[in-house]
Amino acid sequence: MGGGEKILVNAEHPCVCKTRRVGIVTAVQVLILGGDGYLGWPTALRFSARGHDVAIVDNFSRRYWHLQQSTDSLTPIASLEDRISAWQEHSGHRIRSFIGSVDEGDFLDRVVAEVLPDVVIHYAEQPSAPFSMKSRHHAVLTQKTNVIGTLNLMFAIREHVPDCHIVKLGTMGEYGTPNIDIEEGYIEIHHKGRSDVLPYPKLPGSLYHLSKVHDSHNLHFACRVWGLRATDLNQGVVYGIETDETALDPRLVTRFDYDEVFGTALNRFCVQAVIGHPITVYGEGGQTRGFLNIRDTLQCVEIAATHPAAPGEFRVFNQFTEQFSVLELAHLVQRCAREVGLEPTVRHYPNPRVEAEQHYYHAVNDKLLALGLEPHYLGDELIFSMLNVIRGYRDRISLGEVAPKTRWRPGELGAADEEDVPAGADAGAANGNGSPPRPGDDDMLGEETGAAV
Amino acid sequence: MGGGEKILVNAEHPCVCKTRRVGIVTAVQVLILGGDGYLGWPTALRFSARGHDVAIVDNFSRRYWHLQQSTDSLTPIASLEDRISAWQEHSGHRIRSFIGSVDEGDFLDRVVAEVLPDVVIHYAEQPSAPFSMKSRHHAVLTQKTNVIGTLNLMFAIREHVPDCHIVKLGTMGEYGTPNIDIEEGYIEIHHKGRSDVLPYPKLPGSLYHLSKVHDSHNLHFACRVWGLRATDLNQGVVYGIETDETALDPRLVTRFDYDEVFGTALNRFCVQAVIGHPITVYGEGGQTRGFLNIRDTLQCVEIAATHPAAPGEFRVFNQFTEQFSVLELAHLVQRCAREVGLEPTVRHYPNPRVEAEQHYYHAVNDKLLALGLEPHYLGDELIFSMLNVIRGYRDRISLGEVAPKTRWRPGELGAADEEDVPAGADAGAANGNGSPPRPGDDDMLGEETGAAV
Repeated sequence: MGGGEKILVNAEHPCVCKTRRVGIVTAVQVLILGGDGYLGWPTALRFSARGHDVAIVDNFSRRYWHLQQSTDSLTPIASLEDRISAWQEHSGHRIRSFIGSVDEGDFLDRVVAEVLPDVVIHYAEQPSAPFSMKSRHHAVLTQKTNVIGTLNLMFAIREHVPDCHIVKLGTMGEYGTPNIDIEEGYIEIHHKGRSDVLPYPKLPGSLYHLSKVHDSHNLHFACRVWGLRATDLNQGVVYGIETDETALDPRLVTRFDYDEVFGTALNRFCVQAVIGHPITVYGEGGQTRGFLNIRDTLQCVEIAATHPAAPGEFRVFNQFTEQFSVLELAHLVQRCAREVGLEPTVRHYPNPRVEAEQHYYHAVNDKLLALGLEPHYLGDELIFSMLNVIRGYRDRISLGEVAPKTRWRPGELGAADEEDVPAGADAGAANGNGSPPRPGDDDMLGEETGAAV
Repeated sequence: MGGGEKILVNAEHPCVCKTRRVGIVTAVQVLILGGDGYLGWPTALRFSARGHDVAIVDNFSRRYWHLQQSTDSLTPIASLEDRISAWQEHSGHRIRSFIGSVDEGDFLDRVVAEVLPDVVIHYAEQPSAPFSMKSRHHAVLTQKTNVIGTLNLMFAIREHVPDCHIVKLGTMGEYGTPNIDIEEGYIEIHHKGRSDVLPYPKLPGSLYHLSKVHDSHNLHFACRVWGLRATDLNQGVVYGIETDETALDPRLVTRFDYDEVFGTALNRFCVQAVIGHPITVYGEGGQTRGFLNIRDTLQCVEIAATHPAAPGEFRVFNQFTEQFSVLELAHLVQRCAREVGLEPTVRHYPNPRVEAEQHYYHAVNDKLLALGLEPHYLGDELIFSMLNVIRGYRDRISLGEVAPKTRWRPGELGAADEEDVPAGADAGAANGNGSPPRPGDDDMLGEETGAAV
């Protein structure tokens, strides 16, 4: 990673090195912020499996937020210490852990000074849009944690390891749904006879997504002005349960959220199909987004880390492999579930979010493919596999966690937030304009009877 | 301001009304956040003079930050209570004050609930680029105060007075210096055969300017998704000391900062000319920006407040009246100062900032002019007047406050921050690439001997 003391090795896993050689790959110091999370933990295992020295930072905020809302991961997850011990048994590698919060600047500074990472992978953010929309408290917590945490990281890297590569998890949700193609971070604009390449304009759809937009702007500045190097991974919606390493031992499984706050679309749909809850399509379901398999998240992060940005470069990758509408996913899950003997229905719920339900969507995702990403595309086999794993945890599923409650519009937050809206009887916030449901709305937003894809 | 109960009155000062009629204008409830500041206090006086009910919020952070850095306003300013009493003597109007910080959500919520403003004018932010670049502490304080304060405001308005118009002070510095014309907040982009009108891309030049970019994105969201109404005033660099109301009584004068942290270009240049300090041009001085007279700031804010944005509208005005390069201003001050018997020199200092010193710059500023702004253009008379006022406070000027110290690049902050770099002997951070000054730099960045404009 520059500076002369590091070299590239191994064409298959080209990996920049500083510290020591381990097998064919030369080890680097990897610091994973949020290393106890859904993606952070599998990422830590992957880099450790490759022989890198891995340290993780976590303050267990995700586990704590679940405690606060009386929800839990579908998969039973071990404590961090047990996870680390199990991994050491399997691999012989010890992952170091630092327990603390990235929004505490002195703490993060000390960790960076001790680890002296070659690459930092930054997942340590409040990652839920509904969480950020619940109340002022939740919004402030989200933006403070995410924005100040990233600021602290920028300063710690600048101070101790200015050549370190920051790999930051962003989100495709930063872009919103513009009426033009979504490019990877920048766009060439021709205007009044002149032109420039400028940051792609952002129209994020929640206060969480806004925090990621703020992070992107701050990191871009750190690269432009301080010469730091960073890759912003604007990730689509992730689905999947297992990676090669988490499948090795029950103590290594990663968390799998299916509640309305932390669960994501496809994961939730599969859980709903297993327990006989209607599949929760918000509004018309024409909302189109980029999606990817959790295995591809690991591939993408690894590609970014092993092909670092240049000093001063703020590089943006759009990290997804396929685009789907929400309704397409619902129908895919419905069809596969029927093939394995389940009888799921698809139900159109009044959309709790404020978003376009039919819109143009075409996002570019060339850069990671050009660097060697080999996608695991979504197919029936993946759905069958997820349904099967979920069935194994069926007795852990709590029905009350599934229905959408958190609403984007004012005046509907408090009540809806406290009420446990029964599935299929969801009232309020109908027809997307903040007014109460009209007679006939239930029909319009009701259950689908026909099968389709 | 919508809702049916308010009407427009008076063609000269068209003013929306709710509460009570006072003379020709109908009074509205005006809440000014940061109402003790350079612009906040004159704004409070102006709205009060027009007969509106004015309440202000301030936590005296600007006064406190000056205490911390042993600097002070050129003008001796009265305490807030004395200011308010003096204004009541002159006008008969009582300005209400609430002492507290906007980043304390419960406090701001209570104030908004009590005042029930028709319009909020939000100046309550850390406003200095150099301050934000001093250290991690300063950066975090800046983004926390500004971003969380604005978030708190959004929620308080949504909760208590969703029809209230938020007038937010932004900055032209959000845009940076792109190679295309700077439009007012939005730009129509044609791309791959499609087009959309999207937020104008931002390339801010400091962590302070970034905080304003974040605010703009957050407020835009509040308008798009909650239907709030806001006007973002992307203001240029303000100059000037007096307004009609502050000139009425010495107890009503507003602050005037000339130190390297809170002072702005033209104000600083005039102080430097008076005390015989070289005029501090950073680098080549080709940096071009929009500027405006403090009297025009008041005009613009009044125009925005009396022509509110529509519900759901996030309106952006570029608030400046003229563009100048830094060197043009230095030469203007030099020439005028010579005419009144001073002997100022213009000195090119190694640029402590990271910024282009020669660049394309053309920003649109049509919207406020279309609504009736009548600019006070910068001329010799204004400079003579400023020099005259400053001469009256000459014995209050501290030479040590004037030279630039805070640097944008890493590794140069601590030392430069503590050192009192003597004018004309400024070392470090030369030639804009973070390396120490080379032999010859002093010549290259030295004093100008010839007069010019």
